[in-house]
Amino acid sequence: MKPLLTALALLCAATAQAADEPPPPGSAAALLAAAPATHWRALAPDNTLVMTLPQGQVVIELAPQFAPAHVANIRTLARGHYWDGLAILRAQDNFVVQWGDPGEDIPGEPRKPLGEAKGKLPAEFERPAAGLAFTALPDGDPWAAQVGFVDGMPVARAGDVAWLAHCYGMVGAGRDNAPDSSTGAQLYAVIGQAPRALDRNITVVGRVVQGMEWLATLRRGPPPMGFYADPTLRTAITAVQLASELPPPLRPRLELLRTDSPTFAALNQLRRERKDGWTVRAPGRVELCGVAVPVRDAQPAPSDRSSP
Amino acid sequence: MKPLLTALALLCAATAQAADEPPPPGSAAALLAAAPATHWRALAPDNTLVMTLPQGQVVIELAPQFAPAHVANIRTLARGHYWDGLAILRAQDNFVVQWGDPGEDIPGEPRKPLGEAKGKLPAEFERPAAGLAFTALPDGDPWAAQVGFVDGMPVARAGDVAWLAHCYGMVGAGRDNAPDSSTGAQLYAVIGQAPRALDRNITVVGRVVQGMEWLATLRRGPPPMGFYADPTLRTAITAVQLASELPPPLRPRLELLRTDSPTFAALNQLRRERKDGWTVRAPGRVELCGVAVPVRDAQPAPSDRSSP
Repeated sequence: MKPLLTALALLCAATAQAADEPPPPGSAAALLAAAPATHWRALAPDNTLVMTLPQGQVVIELAPQFAPAHVANIRTLARGHYWDGLAILRAQDNFVVQWGDPGEDIPGEPRKPLGEAKGKLPAEFERPAAGLAFTALPDGDPWAAQVGFVDGMPVARAGDVAWLAHCYGMVGAGRDNAPDSSTGAQLYAVIGQAPRALDRNITVVGRVVQGMEWLATLRRGPPPMGFYADPTLRTAITAVQLASELPPPLRPRLELLRTDSPTFAALNQLRRERKDGWTVRAPGRVELCGVAVPVRDAQPAPSDRSSP
Repeated sequence: MKPLLTALALLCAATAQAADEPPPPGSAAALLAAAPATHWRALAPDNTLVMTLPQGQVVIELAPQFAPAHVANIRTLARGHYWDGLAILRAQDNFVVQWGDPGEDIPGEPRKPLGEAKGKLPAEFERPAAGLAFTALPDGDPWAAQVGFVDGMPVARAGDVAWLAHCYGMVGAGRDNAPDSSTGAQLYAVIGQAPRALDRNITVVGRVVQGMEWLATLRRGPPPMGFYADPTLRTAITAVQLASELPPPLRPRLELLRTDSPTFAALNQLRRERKDGWTVRAPGRVELCGVAVPVRDAQPAPSDRSSP
């Protein structure tokens, strides 16, 4: 067998661990297994969007600290069932998938009303750096003076402003040429090499924390932009709901490793050093968009302390 | 309609152009349309691997300048129909797909003989920088002192050595812990964010120049590594052939923009400046793994000069 990068893959997806095998000492899996509960955080239900596709469920964490107006509008749209029955309109290889109202593509076609959501929002491309609990990565970045994480989101900084970085899995709000032409009704997710040239050019609203495989494997639309010319190739969206609108047993019970925790810092150090038996030349660094934030299913809550 | 990055998408996939619309002046499409024939090159049939999957065709350009022993072995394996009937064994989201002999995964299972190919090769992680026609990108890189292109391949340099960079679409040879344990029989392609930490740790043998969408959309296998636990989810490989073994009419008739051409340099400058009506803040730079090398179907050869 050629395991190709066994140790590396384990670093990248270290939360999966067979119950009957203890993780190797010093491994990413061992670090995660030893992390105290305080190093993990649950998703806040009002910041969590659950998109149900025929293929599976996509869980998106919203970033109200960076795009408060868009996130508020997205919550309103989700509560109004805006996306239910709409579609994935575009899949451009190594770039983005995009979803929204197919009527937007057809001149004269009626568009689905936004309901109580706003039709006009400010551009939210960046925000003041002050007031953010920023955990810097010391590794440098070609696109920004400083990069790091804020509450699990990859963030870049320059001077006194900060913005969400266009890494794999980031979700943004499509717009026309006018910077303030996005409403959050048409969204996209990055499915390839991080298109960092988009940073500070468009409003980023959150990150897919589970289910990227359902978006990334969608059949690609025709070049150059990947909009499906054949409407039957679009994927219908079953529903997009806020987790807070779901009955508690149906909410995703995910926990993310806190990016301000010592365990996250230790994992990144492990990634730099890669003492794994496979690596010949340790990279000595990590890259903002190459750092996966570990996610796990939360333990089921004990139903009754007195039960056996 | 929210075209989301119309101009950008056109930059990224600028070879597609509706025949009835002239490209906008100064656009990437206009630059490509104006490029003289000498700025393009055809794939060399003996350096071109054609993988046929049920979904479609994947065309891989080999890089004998960087991995001569592996490329020679891969040619021998293809001529011996080694991969025909084997399978895609692994698809790990945001990392790689990998293909080869399913028997390698099962202790005691017979393995498909390599035929006339060698069972032992040297590691070819890097090579001397001298002797390469290197076109530098002036934009810098976090992983290497210098980066650029050699014959369409993304390349990094440090001191007197050079290596192929792990960008989206690059193809490498899976190995075990021993650096010289790859034969080229088990190959992988990068389907996500460039895993540059692998650079100089594994032998890279070429690049997918067409058909990445067939690999990138394969159903993912289970975490952490994406090897299919259920063998029925594997994709069977119909055939992998050298283009030089195919009858000329069946060979891919692709042309790639020469990465040492003025047109390629001008395209990259356009990407830095992004004067496209959509971009608010020009990035001012490109990134090695964010630079797509334009590819086009070659014009059919004129069959008869005297025909109407």
